[in-house]
Amino acid sequence: MSGQRVCVSDFEEEAKRVLPKAVYDYYRSGADGQTTLADNVSAFNRWYLMPRVLRDVSIVDLSVSVLGQKLSMPLCVGSTAMQRMAHPAGETATARACKAVGTAMMLSSWATSSIEEVMSAMTSSPDTGGILWMQLYIYKDRELTLSLLRRAEKAGYKAVFVTVDTPYLGKRLDDVRNRFKMPPHLRMSNFSSASLSFSEDDYGNDSGLAVYVANAIEPALSWDDITWLKKHTRLPLDVLEEVVKAVQGRCDVFMDGGVRRGTDILKALALGAKAVFIGRPVLWGLACQGEEGVIELLELLKEELRLALALSGCRSISEVSRSLVRRVNFTSRM
Amino acid sequence: MSGQRVCVSDFEEEAKRVLPKAVYDYYRSGADGQTTLADNVSAFNRWYLMPRVLRDVSIVDLSVSVLGQKLSMPLCVGSTAMQRMAHPAGETATARACKAVGTAMMLSSWATSSIEEVMSAMTSSPDTGGILWMQLYIYKDRELTLSLLRRAEKAGYKAVFVTVDTPYLGKRLDDVRNRFKMPPHLRMSNFSSASLSFSEDDYGNDSGLAVYVANAIEPALSWDDITWLKKHTRLPLDVLEEVVKAVQGRCDVFMDGGVRRGTDILKALALGAKAVFIGRPVLWGLACQGEEGVIELLELLKEELRLALALSGCRSISEVSRSLVRRVNFTSRM
Amino acid sequence: MSGQRVCVSDFEEEAKRVLPKAVYDYYRSGADGQTTLADNVSAFNRWYLMPRVLRDVSIVDLSVSVLGQKLSMPLCVGSTAMQRMAHPAGETATARACKAVGTAMMLSSWATSSIEEVMSAMTSSPDTGGILWMQLYIYKDRELTLSLLRRAEKAGYKAVFVTVDTPYLGKRLDDVRNRFKMPPHLRMSNFSSASLSFSEDDYGNDSGLAVYVANAIEPALSWDDITWLKKHTRLPLDVLEEVVKAVQGRCDVFMDGGVRRGTDILKALALGAKAVFIGRPVLWGLACQGEEGVIELLELLKEELRLALALSGCRSISEVSRSLVRRVNFTSRM
Amino acid sequence: MSGQRVCVSDFEEEAKRVLPKAVYDYYRSGADGQTTLADNVSAFNRWYLMPRVLRDVSIVDLSVSVLGQKLSMPLCVGSTAMQRMAHPAGETATARACKAVGTAMMLSSWATSSIEEVMSAMTSSPDTGGILWMQLYIYKDRELTLSLLRRAEKAGYKAVFVTVDTPYLGKRLDDVRNRFKMPPHLRMSNFSSASLSFSEDDYGNDSGLAVYVANAIEPALSWDDITWLKKHTRLPLDVLEEVVKAVQGRCDVFMDGGVRRGTDILKALALGAKAVFIGRPVLWGLACQGEEGVIELLELLKEELRLALALSGCRSISEVSRSLVRRVNFTSRM
Ligand SMILES: Cc1cc2nc3c(=O)[nH]c(=O)nc-3n(C[C@H](O)[C@H](O)[C@H](O)COP(=O)(O)O)c2cc1C
Ligand SMILES: Cc1cc2nc3c(=O)[nH]c(=O)nc-3n(C[C@H](O)[C@H](O)[C@H](O)COP(=O)(O)O)c2cc1C
Ligand SMILES: Cc1cc2nc3c(=O)[nH]c(=O)nc-3n(C[C@H](O)[C@H](O)[C@H](O)COP(=O)(O)O)c2cc1C
Ligand SMILES: Cc1cc2nc3c(=O)[nH]c(=O)nc-3n(C[C@H](O)[C@H](O)[C@H](O)COP(=O)(O)O)c2cc1C
Repeated sequence: MSGQRVCVSDFEEEAKRVLPKAVYDYYRSGADGQTTLADNVSAFNRWYLMPRVLRDVSIVDLSVSVLGQKLSMPLCVGSTAMQRMAHPAGETATARACKAVGTAMMLSSWATSSIEEVMSAMTSSPDTGGILWMQLYIYKDRELTLSLLRRAEKAGYKAVFVTVDTPYLGKRLDDVRNRFKMPPHLRMSNFSSASLSFSEDDYGNDSGLAVYVANAIEPALSWDDITWLKKHTRLPLDVLEEVVKAVQGRCDVFMDGGVRRGTDILKALALGAKAVFIGRPVLWGLACQGEEGVIELLELLKEELRLALALSGCRSISEVSRSLVRRVNFTSRM
Repeated sequence: MSGQRVCVSDFEEEAKRVLPKAVYDYYRSGADGQTTLADNVSAFNRWYLMPRVLRDVSIVDLSVSVLGQKLSMPLCVGSTAMQRMAHPAGETATARACKAVGTAMMLSSWATSSIEEVMSAMTSSPDTGGILWMQLYIYKDRELTLSLLRRAEKAGYKAVFVTVDTPYLGKRLDDVRNRFKMPPHLRMSNFSSASLSFSEDDYGNDSGLAVYVANAIEPALSWDDITWLKKHTRLPLDVLEEVVKAVQGRCDVFMDGGVRRGTDILKALALGAKAVFIGRPVLWGLACQGEEGVIELLELLKEELRLALALSGCRSISEVSRSLVRRVNFTSRM
Repeated sequence: MSGQRVCVSDFEEEAKRVLPKAVYDYYRSGADGQTTLADNVSAFNRWYLMPRVLRDVSIVDLSVSVLGQKLSMPLCVGSTAMQRMAHPAGETATARACKAVGTAMMLSSWATSSIEEVMSAMTSSPDTGGILWMQLYIYKDRELTLSLLRRAEKAGYKAVFVTVDTPYLGKRLDDVRNRFKMPPHLRMSNFSSASLSFSEDDYGNDSGLAVYVANAIEPALSWDDITWLKKHTRLPLDVLEEVVKAVQGRCDVFMDGGVRRGTDILKALALGAKAVFIGRPVLWGLACQGEEGVIELLELLKEELRLALALSGCRSISEVSRSLVRRVNFTSRM
Repeated sequence: MSGQRVCVSDFEEEAKRVLPKAVYDYYRSGADGQTTLADNVSAFNRWYLMPRVLRDVSIVDLSVSVLGQKLSMPLCVGSTAMQRMAHPAGETATARACKAVGTAMMLSSWATSSIEEVMSAMTSSPDTGGILWMQLYIYKDRELTLSLLRRAEKAGYKAVFVTVDTPYLGKRLDDVRNRFKMPPHLRMSNFSSASLSFSEDDYGNDSGLAVYVANAIEPALSWDDITWLKKHTRLPLDVLEEVVKAVQGRCDVFMDGGVRRGTDILKALALGAKAVFIGRPVLWGLACQGEEGVIELLELLKEELRLALALSGCRSISEVSRSLVRRVNFTSRM
């Protein structure tokens, strides 16, 4: 079926081979010169882990409690749009894989499976555990936005994450070149009209998704909208990214972007994250082998995290502390 | 006609294909080991933009007022010599493109279209707006220098920029190797004699332009000459480059060199520039498609700037501040 | 027989040609992205040696006293497992080479020659000098652990080094891909059962050695075990690696990892090491030419060290001081 | 004859084509990993020149006075051994070239032309000016050493430079591999015996020159020898390299190593050097075209220096100051 995959980049290589170019480009690329994308990954190399020895690490417990839910490890699956482009089972496969591994999945507003479909796919899996959170884009159409929220609440999602960094979509060069749009047999399943479900025929010379965002997503988003939203849900509501940094101390901090190894997760925890998310790696897992592929990928990262903890002398997540990491303060010389 | 160009370097690649090697070399290259040239571009990577979210950026206004003139954006076209080597319409095409986009153009003393020609080409365009400034080299022959100034004033140019960093031309290795001179059908149109219009038959083993500068341009230039010049014009008179840095605070600061993306412009503004200029990118635009090419290029940078402002939470140029940028203070590790 | 080898990397290149791929991979590789491995080597480039002149360096004495034994130089052979994969004579060849050169060898618990075999091979060599130390892994089975210690003591080993950084084996990607195990005609000679001597038929999809460690080595190792061990031997007992750093000043510090040149050794001494060890280079010497190869390699490093001392104006190891090295405090610019 | 050479590296490329490999290797290479060699060149990139404008630079005077002699520029030719391997006229061609350009040459003790030959070749040239200095190695045989000194004094050499950094020759890997020795038709012309003139038949497996140094040069050299030497000459006597740094302020400081451009010379002057030397570039000039080649090379560097001074606003060497250079304090980011 497939060669042995021993690290996350093996998944990416295989995914690259099986995915159509435009899909792989969309999944992989970042905005402009993609320096932030590259930096997200390389940033982890600017920190050392300090090994610690002579501590009994025969048992290492990876479990954590996040937003009131017990997870098997501090690694969750972040929201990435349109997962059925990677595999026919798309988001439903990812949700079942998360349940199998005992962690949480954040479902994108732009999923190619509906809110309800994903929940029922997960519920029907024989495994125990499994948590679903909802990622929410604020649409110009506020009623539509509220309906997404209400559907997630009703279906049993346990938290909502509002994305606030997309008043416009960053300029992703390859998507412009590819005039990226979804394959005709797929649509954003939470919406009914062609324009909202990203299934129009033609988006001109541009990235279709950039056009979609310009048309539908609210560029005037402000704190007032967050306040308004809070009034309409009893779910925990968390604001992603930079914003979170500013409120540090007053709420949990999550981290994502560039996590590719167990040591990356450990470094992020040591620097203060409550849990981390992965985006692209899950897409590679899906592309390689659907639900099985995602389980394999999550288990691989779990084992890498376990080893990283053990070699750092930590027996549980609560023993992870800032002193585990040290900043690289030198420069390489040719 | 041409493939889709989605960023400035697409223009350069296409221009490289269509231009004669010696012309492309002249346009592209810098002095000596070209480290300053490369550094001008990479310097922008040493600054981060800090994203800001939850601000209403549905409308972003890019307009500024520069030297008393209203421009559609803080990006102007810098003076580059001999534009007809890139396209038959040369400087006249660039001037019309600037008018179409609503920004200013600085005309080189060494243009292959005369001061008057360029102004009338611009005036005859149906678009509104459009500003012309004159770049002035100080010739050993002071009467000749004054006549350039008077012609610009009379033709309706709105400011004069004196170039003071060329007592001698830097040593551009490829121009020496190519024994660079202008194609026989072109000349510096503001001058009549063969020696002043850079159309002699033979400049020996050296770069023709280096010989031209050594013969004609004043290497004894000093502050006295600036004072003398000020007496002869009522136009605003600005001194470029390093000099400007020293008088910071007492006059507007402009910046050029290496600007290739909308984020570069934003970083320069955040660091204190009133407006920025581009040189080479305009030559690529001209080479690709004349007036249309320059318009396309300027619009592309304008849209990139608009997006950069929006994702930084700025609704107008006046909201740009030093806090938008942060210095990269780490080093990449292999 | 073989081309001329003028530096350590010549040995590695030749070894790479003669060794089976899986063996070379095991000898060469490090864990995960191998950044620590690469950094061990490049770290030496972050230090300058300051040349000193006008000192009489006609005679340079390299001898030192380590753990009560006189050695011909401050460079010893570190413990590396399974040396018969490199050459039929394996550890016995290395031991005889060390005796010929007058330095010490640390024998791995995982040697493919038994504790007694290696001692008698060394004793039977006509050269004088030669010191053997024992490297000890703490097995889950404590009686087994003690028996290794007692055998080394009885055979005349002069010190024991306990390895404490392997509660689990780091994840070495190539070993996983190669499903690394020993060639069928070899075994870890200090053990009798198939499981302890690393000669089972199948270790599944993983690195065989990782499985071996997980099965046999104590992951619950702590300071209590060190205390327990001290009660059972009169030999000097030293704890490797990071631990040593913490007790700096109270005992001698040894250093290994990445030593590849005479200047590396000198830098390590200047920074406070009593002596340094090499691991991989000895494997390359063995692979190239057995006992002769290891002698040639050790002599080459000895001469490089002698030259480095002379050009630094040092006439003996006791003249080496911190002032000999200076930190590189700049960054390379393209 | 030859293509146009527009910078020093053009000379090296051409020289590489015309020289036998072992000769090119000897001329080019440095010790060990050659990091110091590479760093000598790249170190200049760690300094910026600050352009200065609006100063009358119509006339730039490059002349300086060094060790009591007037030179046309602060760039002299350093001592490099065995120049007849590069060109049949060897050191005599270099001396005549220096006279033509008006600068000084330091003759190596290991020249393939004798002290007297080189002086008479220079004297017989029609040009005016031209200074010879003698580089002196201290031989184990002190009488021999003194005789070199006396011959230089008698022949009219104006200063002596004692080399103190070669108690042993650094390990140059390529010279070892090539078993470097001189071509049979050449010898070190200042000596008569085969062993002293480096013309033995066989130097074994090693670099011949390393063996020569080990046999003949004094490794016990100390300050006492300098004192002793001072008693035997009235010539100015200067000590090279690191030593010079320590006595900074009390005598002139010269600099060499890695100078390849006019801007390099200017940076060295701005950092405090009285004058700089070049070694390898002269060998490339010799190899390309003998005396003409060296003249062309020295004139090229002179013109580059003149341009660098002018663009820095300096009208003479005395106007060069520390404020001209600034340390690069950033790191490049990919
Ligand atoms: C193909 C793709 C689609 C994404 N879609 C969404 C989305 O619909 N909503 C959202 O909030 N973030 C989205 N993201 C951002 C991810 O949640 C995550 O922040 C990002 O992938 C960075 O993590 P990574 O380096 O592990 O991929 C997307 C990212 C990618 C790569
Ligand atoms: C081909 C070329 C010609 C130029 N000609 C002139 C000129 O005639 N007058 C002048 O003051 N600057 C001239 N410049 C400098 C430009 O105005 C500008 O400073 C430079 O191109 C740096 O900006 P860039 O990186 O956007 O090209 C020239 C630059 C180039 C590349
Ligand atoms: C192939 C190989 C096998 C090793 N086996 C052992 C071992 O059995 N016991 C141990 O304590 N260290 C072992 N080490 C670690 C070495 O003693 C040493 O720390 C390491 O090789 C770093 O030094 P180097 O860069 O000179 O190779 C081994 C290292 C290698 C490369
Ligand atoms: C091939 C070669 C031969 C040299 N021979 C001598 C020598 O005989 N005496 C000496 O004092 N320095 C000698 N040197 C050192 C040079 O004087 C000078 O310090 C060195 O070449 C560094 O300058 P560069 O980078 O311009 O080559 C030699 C250098 C080279 C490359």
